Amino acid sequence: MRNLSNALAGWEKALGRRFVITDAASVKEAEAATLPTSGRVLAILKPGNRKQVQVCVRVANKYRVPLYPISTGKNWGYGSRVPANKAAAVLDLRRLNRILDFNERLAYVTVEPGVTQFQLFHFLRKKKSRLILGATGSSPDTSLIGNILERGFAQGLNGDRSNQVCAFEVILPTGELIHTSFDRYPGAKTSRVARQAAGPALEGLFAQSNLGIVMRMTLWLRQIPPYLQIASLWISNRNLEKVIDALRDAVAESLVAPVFGMSNDYKCLAALLGQYPWLQAKERLPMPLAVKNALRRRFELVDWQGNILMPCLNSNEARIRRTRLRHLLRDRVDEVHFWGATANTCLNLLTDKRQFPKTSWESTLRSFLGYPQPDIIKFAYWRKKDLLPSSLDPDRDRCGLIWVPATSPFEGKSLNRVTKLMRKKLLQYGFEPLIGFSCISERCSHVIAAIVYDRTFSEEENRAMKCYRELVLVLHKAGYHSYRLSIESMVLMGQPRDHSQTVLRRLKKALDPQGILSPGRYIY
Amino acid sequence: MRNLSNALAGWEKALGRRFVITDAASVKEAEAATLPTSGRVLAILKPGNRKQVQVCVRVANKYRVPLYPISTGKNWGYGSRVPANKAAAVLDLRRLNRILDFNERLAYVTVEPGVTQFQLFHFLRKKKSRLILGATGSSPDTSLIGNILERGFAQGLNGDRSNQVCAFEVILPTGELIHTSFDRYPGAKTSRVARQAAGPALEGLFAQSNLGIVMRMTLWLRQIPPYLQIASLWISNRNLEKVIDALRDAVAESLVAPVFGMSNDYKCLAALLGQYPWLQAKERLPMPLAVKNALRRRFELVDWQGNILMPCLNSNEARIRRTRLRHLLRDRVDEVHFWGATANTCLNLLTDKRQFPKTSWESTLRSFLGYPQPDIIKFAYWRKKDLLPSSLDPDRDRCGLIWVPATSPFEGKSLNRVTKLMRKKLLQYGFEPLIGFSCISERCSHVIAAIVYDRTFSEEENRAMKCYRELVLVLHKAGYHSYRLSIESMVLMGQPRDHSQTVLRRLKKALDPQGILSPGRYIY
Repeated sequence: MRNLSNALAGWEKALGRRFVITDAASVKEAEAATLPTSGRVLAILKPGNRKQVQVCVRVANKYRVPLYPISTGKNWGYGSRVPANKAAAVLDLRRLNRILDFNERLAYVTVEPGVTQFQLFHFLRKKKSRLILGATGSSPDTSLIGNILERGFAQGLNGDRSNQVCAFEVILPTGELIHTSFDRYPGAKTSRVARQAAGPALEGLFAQSNLGIVMRMTLWLRQIPPYLQIASLWISNRNLEKVIDALRDAVAESLVAPVFGMSNDYKCLAALLGQYPWLQAKERLPMPLAVKNALRRRFELVDWQGNILMPCLNSNEARIRRTRLRHLLRDRVDEVHFWGATANTCLNLLTDKRQFPKTSWESTLRSFLGYPQPDIIKFAYWRKKDLLPSSLDPDRDRCGLIWVPATSPFEGKSLNRVTKLMRKKLLQYGFEPLIGFSCISERCSHVIAAIVYDRTFSEEENRAMKCYRELVLVLHKAGYHSYRLSIESMVLMGQPRDHSQTVLRRLKKALDPQGILSPGRYIY
Repeated sequence: MRNLSNALAGWEKALGRRFVITDAASVKEAEAATLPTSGRVLAILKPGNRKQVQVCVRVANKYRVPLYPISTGKNWGYGSRVPANKAAAVLDLRRLNRILDFNERLAYVTVEPGVTQFQLFHFLRKKKSRLILGATGSSPDTSLIGNILERGFAQGLNGDRSNQVCAFEVILPTGELIHTSFDRYPGAKTSRVARQAAGPALEGLFAQSNLGIVMRMTLWLRQIPPYLQIASLWISNRNLEKVIDALRDAVAESLVAPVFGMSNDYKCLAALLGQYPWLQAKERLPMPLAVKNALRRRFELVDWQGNILMPCLNSNEARIRRTRLRHLLRDRVDEVHFWGATANTCLNLLTDKRQFPKTSWESTLRSFLGYPQPDIIKFAYWRKKDLLPSSLDPDRDRCGLIWVPATSPFEGKSLNRVTKLMRKKLLQYGFEPLIGFSCISERCSHVIAAIVYDRTFSEEENRAMKCYRELVLVLHKAGYHSYRLSIESMVLMGQPRDHSQTVLRRLKKALDPQGILSPGRYIY
């Protein structure tokens, strides 16, 4: 490891000793994820500015020691901050946490990789902004850029985050700097309002990728609608197909705005209870049907429930839209409730300092408005027997969590098929099928199952991984591929029928001739 | 030219002699554009299927003779089908004109490069579809793929066409084949509903580019809204800033749906008259103010006019939305008229066989609904003295037409600035400033000036080119860059302040090692 010690010396010179971390405890911490991983952490580098990142990259090239950039590293359920499958120095970008630009009128904000959901939310509230960005289903402390580069999505307007961004500033594995928008031209007035300059668009190359380090990104925000109407739906499995098809029509008419999601009974129970009902289930796993049914009754759950967003101009319009949605849904839903709030009510709710919402209605509104929920990740502790720790850290606490995402057309038949395949496979392997799906557009949805288990039991972990791999393959075989990969599923995508694999490798070679950036991540 | 004759022999073998065209008349025809060009046409190749295109590419590599792919070649005002700046064989893809897939429920259609606006429109009507795709400001016979790859846009819902597509099938300059969506995996159910597979997104590389030949593309369509309300606005220059800012708020509230455009008085006159009013102007150029003012009175024009789209559920909702828009616009507009039609009225209008609409209201509705206007390109003949020919062909008829596009934030101050710069420069050089702008989103717009002249007068052509180059530089200097380039303006973009130029060249080298695809086009 002569190369490594030289590299470490180079990095220390650039960053200062404080920011090159190699002690065993920190390294072990960084190697922990919510699923078994094989990658090793050689060091943790914490650069403080763009120039330092460029030097880190040059040193990595000089001594051929791979770098593995993370934003805040909370990629839970997909591999956290562990290098994909080799040894690498983790390039931790959380010190780069400035909000660099903000425009209320043109509705955008420019951030660095360390900026979290929570930070942006409070920044907007402090500015008394009328702009929002929906929150994801993860912790308030997750990085915006990190999530978007993995094509994560949120609930609510502009929830399809990765399509509502522009102006990436990227450091390439060679140390070169590029801008994906007109930002590359000095004095451009349109850097933050248009996705690409004239010529080929490079932005797409840097999502789910190991081709560059994104140092800045502009996020497009949305105004709180003048009147925000929400419909809460309860749907039985027997009605699912018909309801989805009706909702697709509603989205096509712009009656309902994506992104909105539905959760099955298991997923709701995990969110509501936080912990598996060990006592009621008499320690049996997976959850006995009788226990589930009793809990369903207690929490008034049916097979599927969720909330959908209907932006309106005022309460009069809300009434018209309500009538139309009722007509589309007719007798198909078990129950539908409508709620509404003016923009001012929404703003008041957002400035409310209480950490936890009073009612489930408030909680729903908060999530659509981008109020990050502090304890949302507690369901990773679902199969744990201990009390929840005061600060949640699923990596440290050996929570087992594996996300299994599948993209599906937003149509009843497909969603029914995908959710059934997931349910069957998880139950077969003794896990509660925690399943949700989100409507991304009138034609596309993502279905996501969570395999939640306790990593302290190796038998359970083996079973979880077997279940995971089989389920991914079953889904791919049925034509429903993963929109996002865990560091252990990269190779599960299988061989494309064309030359795209070869071409990706050729692009990798062109932009990263020595392969020093996140080897094995998405391009392998 | 030993290489050329070998290449021609290779192409003839693959396509048959009929489809390798080298006669002087045809070549001369293909070298004509609406602006001066320096590229030469070596031959015109007309492949009939994917395999033949691959062979054309391999032969081009073998003998190092560049190819210049066109869809239907009607890139008028940007260089038509003339090779960017070198000699190349034009690869004419118009024989590939199949509509390969159509899904009414998921609202998409998959097309080949030869499929025109007109063809898709009639296909949809024949299917009795409720889906539409807005028409561009160009001829019905333009290629959908060709326009989208240049990031062209249309009026109406999904008018930002290049962001409403997916599933490119691309032949690379090496002859390799790739798919940009899940289409790369056999049996994928989501090929046409999601933009990218897991991993880096390659789609962006092939727009405004010379990195590949797009053989197929899926277009996302929109349903006709249940009730379509249109507001016609008349705006004086003194009110422009305030109206734009009000319209931005209206878009942010989803009251008004992009894409919608405004045209200045000159542009409206050119569209209405077709031909310059030689008689009234007593042959003087540019149009004397008194003549313009008389014509403005005759056609009831003010400085700016346009139509905006307000999709509604029914006439009750239309009333609420009308009230809100009136409130936002208050005393800012000179005049506003509202029109409305149910989806069924729209459908009837679309199946109406009359080539020309009865009223301007019908004409507006038609353009939002994607009914391509047959004579829309007649304004290219604006400065011609002869009668319009029965079939319009601006290349053949030596019409002078140069588009000057600039991207601007969608805010009053910027749009005022950009339109003023354009007006001033065009008048300075003796051209009527035909200017329009389109709102692409609540934060972005494209402003486009047309320099229209008569190519038969070389003095006029020299003046037009000088005006064009100066205006582009003035706009860039002010921070308003071109979103789309003519084959003569590639080099006008200037040097970026980062490494993006170098990186683009490196990608070109990686994907097209011999530089046989459209050399000088966007990557130079």
